[in-house]
Order: sequence, then C-alpha cells, then structure tokens
Amino acid sequence: LTNPRSAVVRNASRLATRAFRHEHRRFLAEGAQAVREALAGASVGEVKVHDLFVDASVDRHAELLGAAASLGIDVHVCSERVMAELSDTVTPQGIVAVADFIDRPLASVINGGTSLVALLAEVRDPGNAGSVLRAADAAGADGAVFSSSSVDVYNPKVVRASVGGLFHVPTAIELPVAEVVAAAKSAGMRVFAADGSGSVNLDDLEREGRLPQPTAWLFGNEAWGLSEETLALADEVVRIPIYGRAESLNLATAATLCLYASARAHRKS
Amino acid sequence: LTNPRSAVVRNASRLATRAFRHEHRRFLAEGAQAVREALAGASVGEVKVHDLFVDASVDRHAELLGAAASLGIDVHVCSERVMAELSDTVTPQGIVAVADFIDRPLASVINGGTSLVALLAEVRDPGNAGSVLRAADAAGADGAVFSSSSVDVYNPKVVRASVGGLFHVPTAIELPVAEVVAAAKSAGMRVFAADGSGSVNLDDLEREGRLPQPTAWLFGNEAWGLSEETLALADEVVRIPIYGRAESLNLATAATLCLYASARAHRKS
Repeated sequence: LTNPRSAVVRNASRLATRAFRHEHRRFLAEGAQAVREALAGASVGEVKVHDLFVDASVDRHAELLGAAASLGIDVHVCSERVMAELSDTVTPQGIVAVADFIDRPLASVINGGTSLVALLAEVRDPGNAGSVLRAADAAGADGAVFSSSSVDVYNPKVVRASVGGLFHVPTAIELPVAEVVAAAKSAGMRVFAADGSGSVNLDDLEREGRLPQPTAWLFGNEAWGLSEETLALADEVVRIPIYGRAESLNLATAATLCLYASARAHRKS
Repeated sequence: LTNPRSAVVRNASRLATRAFRHEHRRFLAEGAQAVREALAGASVGEVKVHDLFVDASVDRHAELLGAAASLGIDVHVCSERVMAELSDTVTPQGIVAVADFIDRPLASVINGGTSLVALLAEVRDPGNAGSVLRAADAAGADGAVFSSSSVDVYNPKVVRASVGGLFHVPTAIELPVAEVVAAAKSAGMRVFAADGSGSVNLDDLEREGRLPQPTAWLFGNEAWGLSEETLALADEVVRIPIYGRAESLNLATAATLCLYASARAHRKS
C-alpha cells in the first residue's frame, strides 16, 4: 500500500476523529504493545480486529504478523507516507491495528461480583485517563467507567497511556455519573469520592478497616475535581493525606494510591 | 520592556539552556505557582530572586508583584514578545522569575536526621522527574537527590511538573549513585531499590514491618530501569505488586506508592 487515498487507508485514518470512531464503532490500536493486546483479545474472541497495517519495519514485527495471519486478519504492508496518515505520534511506531470497540454495557462492568472499579467523572486529559486505566489494571480492578463528558476512551493518547489497560480492564463509557453510582450502590459497593475536600483521609480509612468491602472509586476532572452534586452522591469523600507542603497530587498518582489501598485491603481480608 | 534583545531579557532567556543555567547558577521559575514559591523562599532568605518579568496580565498578579516589590526585587513589565522569549510553554503564563539555584550539598540532604529520601538514578524524562519531586513533597520526604546523567532539576518542565516540589524538598544534584547510596547507608538508612525484578513486594515489606526505619528509595530510568550495578548497591530490591494484567506502572506512580508506604509506616511507628 503506497496510496494514502486508497479506501482502506482513508477509512482507517478517519478513525483519528471521535465522531468517525463512534459512527463505525472502530478504533486504532497503535504500536507493538497495543497490537499485541488486540491480537491476544482476538485469539480468544474478545476483540474483533479488522486490519493490520505495518510499514518497512515488517521484520521487527514478524511474530505479530504471524499471529494476525493465523487469525485471518488482513495485513497491509504500507509505505511510510501511509503509516504517517494512520499514526497519532510524531514518530510512528510502524504498526497499527483497526479493531472494533471493546467497551461493555454497565451491567457487565458493575454487578454483584464486582469488588473494585474506577469511575472517571469528566476526566478530560487523555494522558491522565490512560494512566488511571493502567493503574486500575495494575491494581487488579474489575472494571472502569468513563462518564459522559469524559475524554473518549478510544482516543489514541488514552489507548497509549493505558499501556494495555484498555484491553485488560472491562470498561463502560458515556454514562451519567448518577446512573453509575446508583448501579454501584445496588451492587452492594461503597462509593468513595477521591477529593482534597474529604473529611476522612485514605490512611485512616485503611487503618479503620473500612477498605475491604467492595468499592467504587470516583475520580474527578484534573483541573476542577468533582462537582458538588457528584460529591453528594458518594458514601464518603476521601482525601489523600499530604504529609509535606505539596498542595495536591496529580489525578493519576492519587488514583493509584486509592486503588492500591483497596487492592491491599481486599487481599488481606 | 519591549525589546527582546535588551541585556536583561537576553540573559534571562538564555537560562532556557542547561549550560547557561549551570554557568550562572540561575534558573527560570515560570507561572504564578512557581513564582509564589520562589518569593515565599525569598521572604525567609532561602531563595535569592533577581528579577521578575510580567506581561500585560499585571492585574492578575498584583499580589505577587507587591510581594516582589517589598522584597526589593526588580520587576519588569514586558511585552508579549518579550514574555514569549522567556517562556518554555506554548501559552506563556505571563509571569517568570529569575532565581539562584537552590540545590544543596549532599550532607544537608542526607544526614543522621533524615528519615525519607528519593534518589533518582539517571531519570531522563522531565515530566517524570518533576512528578517524583511532587510525590516526595506530598509524602513529606526530607529530600531528593538527582544522580549524574539525570535530567536537569532546573529544566523548566521539571520545575513545572514538580508543582512547588522543587522549592519544598531539599535537593542535591549531579552526584554518582554509589556516593549517594554510601551516604544514605552511613546515615543509618536502609536503601530500597524500586524495580520490577525485586524479590520482595512492597505490600509484604509493609506487612512485615520493614518500612518504619529511615529509608532511601532508589528510582531508575523510565525506559531501562536501574542498572545491575545500582541494584547491587541496594539493601533490597522491591517490586510493586501487580494484581491485574498490567506489565508495570510508570515511574511517577510507582515512586508515589513507595514513598507513601514509607510515609504511612513512619507515622504509624
């Protein structure tokens, strides 16, 4: 493939826009790591991969191309110019897959068997959102939910920053926060909102033995946090203790501390 | 000030390069938050601020300008063109201070009274390095050390990502890792290297009561981690437990978990 205007390239490259992604319910998984996750999902029937594009770096990706071929996925060897069209990064990583959306209905993410989920309420920064998914994955969370007005979970920067998290953590998207919180409560979970205004701090919560129960963590926007209405929905507003002079932590590090505190407590009990 | 070529502007703008910064031992603190920290330091004699540049956003920064004036600091109201010369960001924040370096000798960062320090070994990414400083600040660490071959702590991106951490956490720079580890050990500290290859995991270390002692955490490069030689210097190599399917966490979130685990243990004991 050398023609950036061919139909297959044009359709794939248009997945760079949110509107086109959501119209066709397909997204781009870029880089060897994301492609490997997509193919692993395809091999167990969890992810539908349509096309795989690879540039002159074919040799480096021999294993992935073999896996794709054996799954019957169309592999397109393409020029650098075509790859540049498909890539979100300044330095294209040489391999991109087109896959169907993998988000799930809310009931498959939050239900009676769920013990730990991350709820992202109007998180807008793709790097932060992806890092929270990565932390949720590392902490062994059962799921994640992106509220309405959050960044698109299929934004290439979110996919990249999640380093596989999007493929590992069952995720629901575009839901009103109130509906998600209600689902968590009906499923018997405690809902903790992470916010600097919290009356209880995370370490005390852990010491008081209040973390072993099934928990949904609510994380807010990187600039303005959680709205008053959202805070009011939570069972408890929890702050990260600041032992030094810092004003706060960033969203991804704060979320990591909360999710790991729950993960520790769940495994201890 | 409207002339980007005037001596005061030229000298300040050249602080964008590491070589010029280190020759003159001065750096740029950009944005209201960094300027506020610099002036707070100046008011207690801990930071020497030479010049303050502000653009048409004078009104927004009235409080800071008042503080600067009362400290006898030269305030330069300047054009947008001049501000663009001084700014590291695409959207200049309208206020920049020129301050003397604030790093300290190793003995003032690590000594008999130190209970928690972060040691950054060849960390190259400014965002990660700044985030580790911010986490060290939040966790109440007594200090931080940037090894030789690490990113410059006065790189504007490090200063910005530290969100005040550089001003709050006593920091030593440009030291061989072996010398820093030796100093920590002589000061009676345990040296824990954070690395995915660790034989013990952080949660077990906490459960086994091995965290209350004075601790120096060694954090490695974001791409290749810690070298074999550096790992061999540590008393223990500690991994973050991964409860899900993620391969790893990023440097800043891993460092946050380690520093907070120590901070909790130090306060419990």
